[in-house]
Amino acid sequence: MARPDGMAFVPAALFGSGASSSFSGAPVCARGFAAAAASAPRGRAATMTVAKPGGSGPSFTDHVPVTEKPASLVRGSDAGAADGGTMRERFELMIRAAQDRICAAVEELDGTGKFHEDAWVRENGGGGISRVIQNGSVFEKAGVNVSVVYGTMPPEAVKSASARGVTRDVGYEPGEAVPFFAAGISSVMHPHNPMAPTMHFNYRYFETDRGLWWFGGGTDLTPSYLFEEDAAHFHGTLKAAADGHDPEYYPKFKKWCDEYFYIPHRGERRGIGGIFFDDLNDRPADEIFAFSSAMTEAVVPAYMPLVTKRKDAPFTEAQREWQQMRRGRYVEYNLTQDRGTIFGLKTGGRIESILMSLPLTARWQYDHHPAPGSWEEKTLEAMINPPEWV
Amino acid sequence: MARPDGMAFVPAALFGSGASSSFSGAPVCARGFAAAAASAPRGRAATMTVAKPGGSGPSFTDHVPVTEKPASLVRGSDAGAADGGTMRERFELMIRAAQDRICAAVEELDGTGKFHEDAWVRENGGGGISRVIQNGSVFEKAGVNVSVVYGTMPPEAVKSASARGVTRDVGYEPGEAVPFFAAGISSVMHPHNPMAPTMHFNYRYFETDRGLWWFGGGTDLTPSYLFEEDAAHFHGTLKAAADGHDPEYYPKFKKWCDEYFYIPHRGERRGIGGIFFDDLNDRPADEIFAFSSAMTEAVVPAYMPLVTKRKDAPFTEAQREWQQMRRGRYVEYNLTQDRGTIFGLKTGGRIESILMSLPLTARWQYDHHPAPGSWEEKTLEAMINPPEWV
Repeated sequence: MARPDGMAFVPAALFGSGASSSFSGAPVCARGFAAAAASAPRGRAATMTVAKPGGSGPSFTDHVPVTEKPASLVRGSDAGAADGGTMRERFELMIRAAQDRICAAVEELDGTGKFHEDAWVRENGGGGISRVIQNGSVFEKAGVNVSVVYGTMPPEAVKSASARGVTRDVGYEPGEAVPFFAAGISSVMHPHNPMAPTMHFNYRYFETDRGLWWFGGGTDLTPSYLFEEDAAHFHGTLKAAADGHDPEYYPKFKKWCDEYFYIPHRGERRGIGGIFFDDLNDRPADEIFAFSSAMTEAVVPAYMPLVTKRKDAPFTEAQREWQQMRRGRYVEYNLTQDRGTIFGLKTGGRIESILMSLPLTARWQYDHHPAPGSWEEKTLEAMINPPEWV
Repeated sequence: MARPDGMAFVPAALFGSGASSSFSGAPVCARGFAAAAASAPRGRAATMTVAKPGGSGPSFTDHVPVTEKPASLVRGSDAGAADGGTMRERFELMIRAAQDRICAAVEELDGTGKFHEDAWVRENGGGGISRVIQNGSVFEKAGVNVSVVYGTMPPEAVKSASARGVTRDVGYEPGEAVPFFAAGISSVMHPHNPMAPTMHFNYRYFETDRGLWWFGGGTDLTPSYLFEEDAAHFHGTLKAAADGHDPEYYPKFKKWCDEYFYIPHRGERRGIGGIFFDDLNDRPADEIFAFSSAMTEAVVPAYMPLVTKRKDAPFTEAQREWQQMRRGRYVEYNLTQDRGTIFGLKTGGRIESILMSLPLTARWQYDHHPAPGSWEEKTLEAMINPPEWV
């Protein structure tokens, strides 16, 4: 079941996804931006140390583990001038800096858990860095992945990756494979304590070889037990970060998030949302890059205080079971609805990085319904009829 | 998200599935067959007691719970002469007798667990009976469902339900909805003890309103720890039951089973197989009915002795964790590959009956690989390269 050569490797949640019918021109790559990029040394594949080929499973065959991470996973031919670089380079540096910063915050909060890192490169360019904590003191499972992909979208994959049935192959012959570049950061954090919420975020940048480009991303919260003040803090922090870029972003992307994380067969969302956007290319790329960077910077202040506040809260065995059932819904969403997961599984992504988003443990109890008036029911109600939080 | 009127309600695993390009004539319904049927009293919708409408979730709206099960879920207009009945009736009676017999065997083996029963009818004919045990002494979760469905397959659903991309709408205009009848029994049993295997079976009968018909089904085993003698007993019992009907059945359907329960993104099967078939209509319906009946009768002797033998086996915490990880793979298979589950979720089936097949608990551990030479690795090897067991 090795996948055919030339098919895209697209890790989980690079596609969040959706398709735009309004592509515009070539990326605008302003010079001089080096905020997040400053800390990362430059250097390329020449510095890679290949550890061993393969791994297990059919899809690992061309993800080559490396013991020393290259300073950039972008192909040398895609590199720009030394004073700023192309958007491909800048986005990679930004998400790698975000990965370092967010992982450091997680380790500090956890106290004992340390991220296990797997890095890999692919023969024809691109690669990734997966970091996972399992069974930490605070986090049951937390992962932060970065990946850079050179691939081609086969027509079928383009369709799967498409939110609205619109293909990405503007300017291509029908059925023609679409070569693309994609870079993304994706993360899911599942704390032990049922009072502490799960959080997911993902920010990504796409470019086709003919200069079409777009940004996508989102940050969303999945509590097992709703604390309204926590929801307001989370949404409020995201809103404050977004408002500086466009006051229309938060209301628009909050609604989009509520629509995206919907589980049709349950009639509910997997959580209480946050923001989600895709196909964003309606203004200079620099501006959307700055917005994406700001949203990765908002992850720690939006989420970590909630975990700090709830990580030692008392809870009952019944509350732990309810958390496990909500994790079951998380699995249902990710395996049956999430376009990134489905696309990644179909196209030979690195399975362990894709399924890192699944909780360590989950539960399916036949025909369970929360008691009328219970905290569980109130929490669920917010996932059925999403309120405005700020 | 209420589904549009007229779309098919198809419970999990009614579609196993696959599509035949070789339909033949009207069903052959011999008179006088009453083996499994003998114990079920005749009677129809007039005896139904409607308890209360609805339930929770978007898909329950037209599954009306009943406190008193009708003697038949087949429409009165589909009833045949008193001395035998139509194949629709006979199949329903057969699977309901099988449900009674198998549930009795499970309760006897479990000792304390008792099946919880949910029965429902649908306004336009059909209905179902779900029976589930949770947290018994031996079984962590065990369910046996019977359902009878009158529906129409929308073109999209026909495609989803199709194993090989061949549509079922022979004789219909392109895009025309295909009214059908389906009756099926499906079951999954997950014992507590990691040494005792999980088992699934499903037998089903389809008819379109223009007289196309086919049978499908299968029985398969998913051990966390492989005992070769158990595998040989299970496969041997299925083979013996099938050989009496056609000596080519077992080898052909064993291979089909190995192909069907494959998880492409893992490069492994969910278990060690058994038999699986679909689209069976190449001989008189009576003969395939007799074969299907025999296979439901083989479930108890094929499976129960294995549980009896292993239910009190000692095990370690690490072995329990491995079992939980294998259950994670079961969830992956059912949610991403199983056509019955995917079809049921898409077409508004009764969610709790569809997802009853999921284990009570499951686990996803990042990048776990069994130790070389370990029992776990040997078990997994049989799921990667399926051996011949008999």
